[in-house]
Amino acid sequence: MPGNRRRGFQAERELVKKLWNHGFAVIRAPASGSGARRIFYPDIVAIYRGKVFVIEVKYRSSNGPIYISRDKMDKLLDFAKRANAQIFVAIKIKSRGWYLAPLMDACITTPQGCKIEIINNNIISLEDFINKAINDSLDKYISNNT
Amino acid sequence: MPGNRRRGFQAERELVKKLWNHGFAVIRAPASGSGARRIFYPDIVAIYRGKVFVIEVKYRSSNGPIYISRDKMDKLLDFAKRANAQIFVAIKIKSRGWYLAPLMDACITTPQGCKIEIINNNIISLEDFINKAINDSLDKYISNNT
Repeated sequence: MPGNRRRGFQAERELVKKLWNHGFAVIRAPASGSGARRIFYPDIVAIYRGKVFVIEVKYRSSNGPIYISRDKMDKLLDFAKRANAQIFVAIKIKSRGWYLAPLMDACITTPQGCKIEIINNNIISLEDFINKAINDSLDKYISNNT
Repeated sequence: MPGNRRRGFQAERELVKKLWNHGFAVIRAPASGSGARRIFYPDIVAIYRGKVFVIEVKYRSSNGPIYISRDKMDKLLDFAKRANAQIFVAIKIKSRGWYLAPLMDACITTPQGCKIEIINNNIISLEDFINKAINDSLDKYISNNT
């Protein structure tokens, strides 16, 4: 496996483990080319007590911008609509850790799709993402039971 | 790939397509052995507008009973608890089609885990499963908006 693809794959597995260890149900997409081509699988689907997150994973060695193609955006949006999910782009930057960008808030539209700048007010740390998912789920639980 | 495994795999893909075509977001587990061994992936996770279904897929050439091991049950239950999901066993019987068993209602406990008889009042057709998921989701939508 070439170095970039391998590091992307390792980053994906690392994120799965972190979310799992914090109580999320997590599922990784099967390797591309494993059939059913017309069906789109996001890199990761993470669920916390009924709250669904569609996550596209990126690995970068520096903090340049991230690009998401128009076609990928359309597929992510379709999947998220079916699931009633929020879409995040999870970016692992070498020696700096994880950053999570809510796709719709962090996206700067370009003719080719979407550009995300790592220096962006909408981007949150993995810890904040996890805490927010857990707290939102508690809020829902409390409001349903009072 | 041996015949049984191939047919199981084909059944899984067929079910993914059917659910996708009815508006579900669907994700198949990566092939086993693809790392992260401590993390459990169900065969299929299907989501309809925030309602999550964990689905274990079985293929049978006749309608004998289905067995689920205690270990598999524990893993399915843990995943479902994290996701706030319902667990179904989807059984494709050769020349007869698909039957869906809600795990907790259809399971007859045995020392090794769980036994499911295909002739069981709790088992529903794929059509009924799909209609129920869509209607439940509509009910929720209506009650949240009135």
